[in-house]
Amino acid sequence: MYIGIDVGGTNLKAGLVDEAGHILAAERIPLDFQGPESFAKTLADLSGKVLREGVEWVGVGLPGAVDGGDILYTTNIPMENVPLEKLFRRHLDLPLLLGNDADCAAVGEFFCGAGKGTKDFAVVTLGTGVGAGLIVDGRLRGGMASCEAGHMVICLDGEPCNCGRRGCWERYASATGLIQQTKRAMEAHPESALHKIAAEHGVEGRTAFLAAEDGDEAALAVCRRYAEYLAAGLINFVNAFRPEAVAIGGGVAGAPERLLLEPLREIMARECFSSHGGRATRILTAELGNDAGIIGAAMLGRVL
Amino acid sequence: MYIGIDVGGTNLKAGLVDEAGHILAAERIPLDFQGPESFAKTLADLSGKVLREGVEWVGVGLPGAVDGGDILYTTNIPMENVPLEKLFRRHLDLPLLLGNDADCAAVGEFFCGAGKGTKDFAVVTLGTGVGAGLIVDGRLRGGMASCEAGHMVICLDGEPCNCGRRGCWERYASATGLIQQTKRAMEAHPESALHKIAAEHGVEGRTAFLAAEDGDEAALAVCRRYAEYLAAGLINFVNAFRPEAVAIGGGVAGAPERLLLEPLREIMARECFSSHGGRATRILTAELGNDAGIIGAAMLGRVL
Repeated sequence: MYIGIDVGGTNLKAGLVDEAGHILAAERIPLDFQGPESFAKTLADLSGKVLREGVEWVGVGLPGAVDGGDILYTTNIPMENVPLEKLFRRHLDLPLLLGNDADCAAVGEFFCGAGKGTKDFAVVTLGTGVGAGLIVDGRLRGGMASCEAGHMVICLDGEPCNCGRRGCWERYASATGLIQQTKRAMEAHPESALHKIAAEHGVEGRTAFLAAEDGDEAALAVCRRYAEYLAAGLINFVNAFRPEAVAIGGGVAGAPERLLLEPLREIMARECFSSHGGRATRILTAELGNDAGIIGAAMLGRVL
Repeated sequence: MYIGIDVGGTNLKAGLVDEAGHILAAERIPLDFQGPESFAKTLADLSGKVLREGVEWVGVGLPGAVDGGDILYTTNIPMENVPLEKLFRRHLDLPLLLGNDADCAAVGEFFCGAGKGTKDFAVVTLGTGVGAGLIVDGRLRGGMASCEAGHMVICLDGEPCNCGRRGCWERYASATGLIQQTKRAMEAHPESALHKIAAEHGVEGRTAFLAAEDGDEAALAVCRRYAEYLAAGLINFVNAFRPEAVAIGGGVAGAPERLLLEPLREIMARECFSSHGGRATRILTAELGNDAGIIGAAMLGRVL
């Protein structure tokens, strides 16, 4: 048995996870960051709430970069170069395994979701950014080798990205990118049904899909172009790694299959290098939803 | 001991290679393709010329895609779905291991050249196209999983590529791409010293570098932009795989360091995701030159 903790922007979620990936007990507390020492103690306290005899390690997934038991940096919590495992063990004497959140999502899906039965597998998460986690021959490309496929340039000299490059895939294929593309279409098409939907909920990742389902032309064009952006980076990734399967996760992955996965698969069948030979990569939808983080963090010790 | 055979566009080169990667004996014959059966016999005959007691296998590197002992297709020889090992063993009863030529270059450099001492390593070869070979945790991403990083789109809706995509890295960063960029600069700049150099040798990959060394502005601009193209795809690749080192090979890699490797390293230091944390990838020059193919083919059995 393992403990997995998913460190999100607002909450910490911990789960006791068995070898098959079932969550046997779960706890959630708000994130109230008061510095690395108290954060380590919070993780230990939270672990204590789901701890049972036989737990082998505590895995923690967080947004940022890690190296072994050390945090290099986190993106929504102000930590840099923190020896988190060392601080944690002052309170609970168990190995603390750290993983980037996108990597944990990949690990979770690999053992218990869309990636079951594969050896070479990736998850691409479409959210605020584009996260990617990669499993090669059953081992996670984690820690210092953690995959940052969202920061592939697909559009030379294109839109500036926070990472310092221009034209990164995540600027186009993230939910953030999709929202920006939707807003631009709204400006260009005052007659579009996008405005009516946006008036109810604000502009969200699903706005264009909702309007496109009603047959709105401007929205259909946004969805088509978004699928092309998504395909461009995904094919780049697939041509380089040739995994057996890639699962798409995050809110946008819930879009109607006809508007997202179908055009995506069609472009990929045409453009992936496998059309010339070699392994064709299956494009799947992530299955675990919000549990992927806990399960993946818990399973870290089996892929590192 | 192993035998390695490098199948080029015009010649077959075979070498007897020891465990340390030394070529103990070598033979070369012109490629005279008369169908798969006679090709298999030619490989067996050529192997026989360097064969000694204790040879464990024959490795063959060729342009194309392979799956185990089968050829899926070759690009400059008309073969498709050929069970080459089966045909070969009619003449010589040794295991026949097949590899893509870019993959073999990576394997050769990994054991005996720029990649010695690494576990995660890649070679990017700048020639007619952009070839890439990738070693992950000491194993080649070969066969059905062979890396095709040259077919990453860096420029959405850009120049059409033979692979069916538009804007592939290899359209910009190959020697072919560089020659095209040089020709365009010559058209735009009739006063450029590029014309004088091209008049002597024709337009080659080195033309722009030669003129740039003489301080020609148009040539300097071509070299700078070429380094940006090369960097764009290389950083994409490095951000996704985070290898310890990448070696650049092929004719263009011989360009003056000041004009190619220096600007390349400078862009990479600024733009690689490692500037935010994680492992920085060293950029090296391939060391084995024309021997990489023979040595890499010979070593295939140690990384597959």
